[in-house]
Amino acid sequence: MNSYHKETVKIYKALKAIQSELTGRTQFSLANLTININGKDGLGGLIEEWFGVWAEKEGFNIENPKKNGSSQKFPDYYVWNDGEEKHHLEIKTFDDDASANFDIANFQSYCESLAENPERVYADYLIFAYQIKDGNLKINHIFLKKIWEITCASKRWPLKTQTKRDVIYNIRPSNFKNEKSGKHPSFKSKDEFINALFKTEEQYLEKPSENKKNYLKRIQQAR
Amino acid sequence: MNSYHKETVKIYKALKAIQSELTGRTQFSLANLTININGKDGLGGLIEEWFGVWAEKEGFNIENPKKNGSSQKFPDYYVWNDGEEKHHLEIKTFDDDASANFDIANFQSYCESLAENPERVYADYLIFAYQIKDGNLKINHIFLKKIWEITCASKRWPLKTQTKRDVIYNIRPSNFKNEKSGKHPSFKSKDEFINALFKTEEQYLEKPSENKKNYLKRIQQAR
Repeated sequence: MNSYHKETVKIYKALKAIQSELTGRTQFSLANLTININGKDGLGGLIEEWFGVWAEKEGFNIENPKKNGSSQKFPDYYVWNDGEEKHHLEIKTFDDDASANFDIANFQSYCESLAENPERVYADYLIFAYQIKDGNLKINHIFLKKIWEITCASKRWPLKTQTKRDVIYNIRPSNFKNEKSGKHPSFKSKDEFINALFKTEEQYLEKPSENKKNYLKRIQQAR
Repeated sequence: MNSYHKETVKIYKALKAIQSELTGRTQFSLANLTININGKDGLGGLIEEWFGVWAEKEGFNIENPKKNGSSQKFPDYYVWNDGEEKHHLEIKTFDDDASANFDIANFQSYCESLAENPERVYADYLIFAYQIKDGNLKINHIFLKKIWEITCASKRWPLKTQTKRDVIYNIRPSNFKNEKSGKHPSFKSKDEFINALFKTEEQYLEKPSENKKNYLKRIQQAR
């Protein structure tokens, strides 16, 4: 079961309700000359920053851990129900005119962080597919997903990753936008994803995964 | 002699004349909520895009080769005197609160392109050092330079480059902002730079440089 956090579901529904209004632009001013920006560089960061301000303004239980100058790497946001524990919320964006090709996480860091914080695997992902034309930005789709719903196998590894010169860099997304057109379907469950993650680590390092061992130990203790 | 192009010099002087007005901001709007952007991601691209619009509006002889959808990689802009040939102008930016660490060019592509277009070495570089605080952007310094005035040797190579896992990626700048504080001074001439460039290529590839051979052949023919 893909149980998204209740607060995330509320936020997702609020965004879907105003989706037709989700249009806008980036304007850059210097010396009394303002230009509309058509480029996509940095746009993901702008949407992520905007999202946090919007969600706070709308009164949702949301917090940006990097707000007070912390260099914390994940999550992008925390959400929570009143009086309950904080839950991870990650924001991803991609150009809807191309296939989804954002970095989900650095592969090695993700393996290590799961060994430390197994609950990270339950993070919610809010994904914005945007389109930009003549400086006009439009959010075409919003997805609410778990990591196993946006990852898949690949020809080379049990988990699809960005691999250059035999070095694995990032975990890369499946074709979740259009499952039928992808060679490899998204995983069906958390366990399928976890297996693929650590199997990839073991094949890559050519030895048993310490991270897998620590991950299993921690979830055993938590039971 | 560092002979910058006449049109570049005019542009540089016009920018210096309004330097105190070179303040501004990036605003991002979506669904009737506008936020001031404090992040530096993509800021270089915004300044570069603004510069082209500004220079054209001011009536300078300037053209963005990428304007008509061309995927041309360099230069950022062409400048020219009336009736004369076009000259390369590159725009670079860096955070004035840190040291200049922008990518001057991809190392291997630069070696290859000099072999094809030896005149690329004479490109002018307009460099903007910015500061951003609470969403307010300020241009602190503007530099007009040639490539040999912003490059230097390094401990590892005759030419300072970004090198990771023994792979050379980009040509990286000297400490031209403050020559006294750098270990390696900027080069004194075009020839010093060219020598360092191809010497680095030969040490890196561990064989004579084909690019150097072709570069020398072309400049001989042009004489």
